[in-house]
Amino acid sequence: MLNQQVANARQLPSSQAGTSIMKEYVTELGVKLLDVEIAYETYGNLSVDGDNVVWLCHALTGDAHAADIEGHPGWWGALIGPGKAIDTDRYFVVSSNVLGGCAGTTGPASVIPGTKEAYGADFPDITIRDMVNVQKALADHLHIRRIELVIGGSMGGMQALEWAIMYPDVVGKSVVIAADPEFSTMGIAYNDVMRQAILSDPNYVGGRYLRSGIFPNQGLRVARMLGMITYRTAALFKERFARETEDGEFQVNHYLRYQGDKLVKRFDAQSYLTLLRAMDTHDIGRSRGGLSAALSSIRAELIWVGIDNDLLYPASDLMQAMELAKSCGANARYAHIHSPFGHDAFLIEFDQLRDLIQGVL
Amino acid sequence: MLNQQVANARQLPSSQAGTSIMKEYVTELGVKLLDVEIAYETYGNLSVDGDNVVWLCHALTGDAHAADIEGHPGWWGALIGPGKAIDTDRYFVVSSNVLGGCAGTTGPASVIPGTKEAYGADFPDITIRDMVNVQKALADHLHIRRIELVIGGSMGGMQALEWAIMYPDVVGKSVVIAADPEFSTMGIAYNDVMRQAILSDPNYVGGRYLRSGIFPNQGLRVARMLGMITYRTAALFKERFARETEDGEFQVNHYLRYQGDKLVKRFDAQSYLTLLRAMDTHDIGRSRGGLSAALSSIRAELIWVGIDNDLLYPASDLMQAMELAKSCGANARYAHIHSPFGHDAFLIEFDQLRDLIQGVL
Repeated sequence: MLNQQVANARQLPSSQAGTSIMKEYVTELGVKLLDVEIAYETYGNLSVDGDNVVWLCHALTGDAHAADIEGHPGWWGALIGPGKAIDTDRYFVVSSNVLGGCAGTTGPASVIPGTKEAYGADFPDITIRDMVNVQKALADHLHIRRIELVIGGSMGGMQALEWAIMYPDVVGKSVVIAADPEFSTMGIAYNDVMRQAILSDPNYVGGRYLRSGIFPNQGLRVARMLGMITYRTAALFKERFARETEDGEFQVNHYLRYQGDKLVKRFDAQSYLTLLRAMDTHDIGRSRGGLSAALSSIRAELIWVGIDNDLLYPASDLMQAMELAKSCGANARYAHIHSPFGHDAFLIEFDQLRDLIQGVL
Repeated sequence: MLNQQVANARQLPSSQAGTSIMKEYVTELGVKLLDVEIAYETYGNLSVDGDNVVWLCHALTGDAHAADIEGHPGWWGALIGPGKAIDTDRYFVVSSNVLGGCAGTTGPASVIPGTKEAYGADFPDITIRDMVNVQKALADHLHIRRIELVIGGSMGGMQALEWAIMYPDVVGKSVVIAADPEFSTMGIAYNDVMRQAILSDPNYVGGRYLRSGIFPNQGLRVARMLGMITYRTAALFKERFARETEDGEFQVNHYLRYQGDKLVKRFDAQSYLTLLRAMDTHDIGRSRGGLSAALSSIRAELIWVGIDNDLLYPASDLMQAMELAKSCGANARYAHIHSPFGHDAFLIEFDQLRDLIQGVL
């Protein structure tokens, strides 16, 4: 038993959790935010030369808690730790909650400095670039000048890509999993259905629900149910649930409703809206003279990773993006994750992710 | 001008609209409905031998109005009329609103006979088989003993398939477009998101909204927006809307919201729920010893039609269903509609549908 505990402890990375503060941050769209807090965790130790940093970027409903720490599983726990793919004996790993999020970093549910009110719907529209800029401030705070590898999936992949474009002198390698250079029309469309579900909830009250303490849970629940569908595949649902029923209801419906109920307990609806909008406006070509110009500026080694039957980010689109990057002179290659899961594979297919990451590092 | 009018008149089929009444109907699940009204239209004339009947089945939000009549375009107007694919100089065409619908046939918004109250949520769960049984009563009312061709897409295809199984002595040919032998897990999942959007609308008030006259329009609107996404393709949306904006909003969002707003003006939310459930329970194998047993009973010529990139009914699934039907001894074949539109192609690709129908007739 004791041996097992020792063995378990050995599996855990040395970790730090903290909050960094920016005195002010002006968003890409020109709105000034004061006292921006950035919640983060680090695993492992920064080398003297500062050449061992792995930077993680989380997806829509993720947070800074990526590694398994003290009984709390992280979203990439299988990949981060001593001897794991992202070996914390060797690498200094940083994971932070995005700007606009609701897990410690300043977002719509945060109190406006100098007041007792939360931002709510007054939180400004932010972009993926804003998320990266705030992360860069955190990197500075941590005395990080060089990032060996930045990696993320979905909304995290968008950030990993922007990192490579915005800070070409900082980023060595960027692994962009299940994300595109500009968010697709279909992605925008799905996001709007989720958005309308939340806005239609009468408890949303124009984004002032934090004052009443009555939350637009029904709307957020419906949004999450739809999200879950787009993250998975028809084949997976068929295999797992078929047309089986339980208590007079289809099992797949029980599953989706359970997922919806689970999210509303841990996520803020206005933060969800803020992040949807940031995804919508993701377009690396914006104000840079187009996609090609943006891709041409990348100096990092770029690994674009697609997934089988990803409804939101079809692998063929990502291969095309990679080819475009190559034709723009980027050191780019494509990698593929085979999975019955669809989009969510980047949170599930750890064996393939392990091989992929070890190959890159 | 007069010549043009004559020419236009020549394009129109001779038509009748009417309502047939069943004194009572007991649903598959055993609930008795009284005075069931069936709204229908017919185009052309029944031959003396009664050997020229084409029976149309509409999809989820369709109605009996299939042909273009007196300035009112029908959902298959391009295909029905003198000299058209379904030639009303030759064929007697019947189109009716489904049981549970809200365009003239008894459904949740109808008044319960002997009362002044609408059924609302008290309307019983019905099945695709109930729709077909009620249509069979209409056929009897119209002195139809033989149906040369029954045809429909999506929920209409489910009915066309059930017609062939339930009334093998009546149906000569069945064209099942973009529909499967049992509704897919993914289809059930999408339906539940739409359902939860409606049920979450506080104006739904447990299905008693007809009494208040305040409708769950927001919920139905969100449901329709999602429906529209599943009826189209990512490629189509990309080509049509790209990432273009208008008045600060993405065009694709304007489009989806417009479609949502349009539906709530013409459709009853409880009827929508009733039809979703009928689709969910669509399974030709139910109480018949399974799919193969059901397919074995088909004597009609069966044409299964798939569409490129149909998110809800992938062509590969329908080909498989057709192969299963053949292996069960059915006279079955597969036809394909090439289209950038996806599922909705059965309401759009009239040239291909014309060729298909002419080939069958």
